[in-house]
Amino acid sequence: MAEHPEDRHRPDEFSLIAKYFAPLAAHAPGAYGLGDDAASFMPSAGMELVMTVDAIVEGVHFLPGDPAHEVARKLLRVNLSDLAAKGARPLGYLLTTAWTSDTSVAWIADFARGLAADQALFGLSLWGGDTVLTPGPLSFSLTAIGEVAQGGMLRRSGAQLGDDLYVTGTIGDSALGLAVAQQRLSPSWPAAQMLVGRYQVPQPRLSFGQALVGVAHAALDISDGLMADLGHLCAQSKLGAWLDAARVPVSSSGRECLDGSLATLETILTGGDDYELLFTAPVSAAKHIDSIALQCEVPVSRIGKMVHAAEGIVAIDAAGQPMSFKQTGFRHF
Amino acid sequence: MAEHPEDRHRPDEFSLIAKYFAPLAAHAPGAYGLGDDAASFMPSAGMELVMTVDAIVEGVHFLPGDPAHEVARKLLRVNLSDLAAKGARPLGYLLTTAWTSDTSVAWIADFARGLAADQALFGLSLWGGDTVLTPGPLSFSLTAIGEVAQGGMLRRSGAQLGDDLYVTGTIGDSALGLAVAQQRLSPSWPAAQMLVGRYQVPQPRLSFGQALVGVAHAALDISDGLMADLGHLCAQSKLGAWLDAARVPVSSSGRECLDGSLATLETILTGGDDYELLFTAPVSAAKHIDSIALQCEVPVSRIGKMVHAAEGIVAIDAAGQPMSFKQTGFRHF
Repeated sequence: MAEHPEDRHRPDEFSLIAKYFAPLAAHAPGAYGLGDDAASFMPSAGMELVMTVDAIVEGVHFLPGDPAHEVARKLLRVNLSDLAAKGARPLGYLLTTAWTSDTSVAWIADFARGLAADQALFGLSLWGGDTVLTPGPLSFSLTAIGEVAQGGMLRRSGAQLGDDLYVTGTIGDSALGLAVAQQRLSPSWPAAQMLVGRYQVPQPRLSFGQALVGVAHAALDISDGLMADLGHLCAQSKLGAWLDAARVPVSSSGRECLDGSLATLETILTGGDDYELLFTAPVSAAKHIDSIALQCEVPVSRIGKMVHAAEGIVAIDAAGQPMSFKQTGFRHF
Repeated sequence: MAEHPEDRHRPDEFSLIAKYFAPLAAHAPGAYGLGDDAASFMPSAGMELVMTVDAIVEGVHFLPGDPAHEVARKLLRVNLSDLAAKGARPLGYLLTTAWTSDTSVAWIADFARGLAADQALFGLSLWGGDTVLTPGPLSFSLTAIGEVAQGGMLRRSGAQLGDDLYVTGTIGDSALGLAVAQQRLSPSWPAAQMLVGRYQVPQPRLSFGQALVGVAHAALDISDGLMADLGHLCAQSKLGAWLDAARVPVSSSGRECLDGSLATLETILTGGDDYELLFTAPVSAAKHIDSIALQCEVPVSRIGKMVHAAEGIVAIDAAGQPMSFKQTGFRHF
């Protein structure tokens, strides 16, 4: 990125906030133009608030060379994905940014541009934040606030014995995209482009999640990996699960990697960062769920069943054999 | 601190959360025992929510050797101080923690103990959070949520011409305490103890702030320094201020430093991290404010007046002369 004319004399925190971040709060009356160090908000009648927070660190959750607008969008979208999994409509967010003294104004401006683009796309506003200095790495934390009809929030704990297990979109693209970005995997150029894009900018399934309120029994978004997150859902619901690995939806780019023996099904099932919805619903809801998929233009796949806890969590491969995994998902430590 | 038996084999993120952080959420039904990656909340009828966020970084906002429970309490309290300045009653908070691979279980346990102590003191609960790994430094971000009667939130922008300017407690202790902690200042041992304590664990003026709703015209909490924060209040209210520096309340420990020429009045007025309330109120409210001070057992001092913006912000010293400052407050960059 070209040097920004202001880089050599970076303006102070207050000027940066006024120039790049206050416009992001312009449509939120309770944000008071970021001039007040706190935001106020009244939820609509009959609605309850849903709040979630995620932090990202340079070198851990994003790569030092990633474009700032993509880092910003990923940060916002991983939180929106949490709201999607709760069936909530996003309203606003609070942001903390830890810049280093080397962070250029151009980088900050590009970061704010990424937020502006996604705010417009998903219909929410910046409500407030805090900016601090760090010796590095860059790190960010974002609290997203949404609303859902009172008592309607989807949870991890609601799954019932005999429920069908579903997943939106395709699984494994992001883990493969990270491998491509780190030059550990070299598929065809179009596949590489698609996979890296899925890693860099996840797609929160907001309308799908909102449509699942009152339909799904339990839901979460896949961030740690399909097997690990299925484990969280089972633990919270005190059930086991049987998963038909051949039914787990894989994109054509992912299929190319599998067919060329560039990647294994284990990477697909345990890689993480998918930000697709994993949910359970009664067998009787199957048609309703198909119609939600059509309406939201997001594919959905039935990939398994909820079983007794004593049966554990078992993935069956195409040959009908139970699979075993070296690692079931991303460990944060 | 003694080595914790678990240090050598630190449990994974989920075990740490279950053991040390889930108990902090036990009394918040909408936190779902931290098992759900999001919290839900319904404000009481007629109340609006107030939200604020602050981040702290090791080496910038706290010192590497500071005890973990003090770091945790400072993080919580700087946010509670923001709620106090809005007149809000605290309800809950979301927390992001970025630990390094060297952070011991003992440190994390002590951090959680600090939060537990202050939760009990201030009557709020942990609602959710995120834990990530960082190569360092340690950094934390906390979003605090409170409530205030609809339309009652105190703001920076409400000051009126002719308002009296007030401050709670004493000013400058924290800046002097930091100087003591960094061995740049050596007062008597009792004074050193008191000043460092004020730096490490600020006291949010929650009940005072709540009592000011409907009484004060404008308020904020002093974090950047009295002069800098007075600047923010004046900018948001489009007014100037006249400040009688001799009336700015100084503790006996602070007075000892001034009298011994160990510190200057400039450090007191611009040092920051006071977390006292700075507010304006009409002259007619003077008695009411005195009664609030009595009721809350927090001293209050009338230190100046709001004047026309064209008159600027002027501090008058004991000799009646306008003061000038090298720097008006903490710059975040």
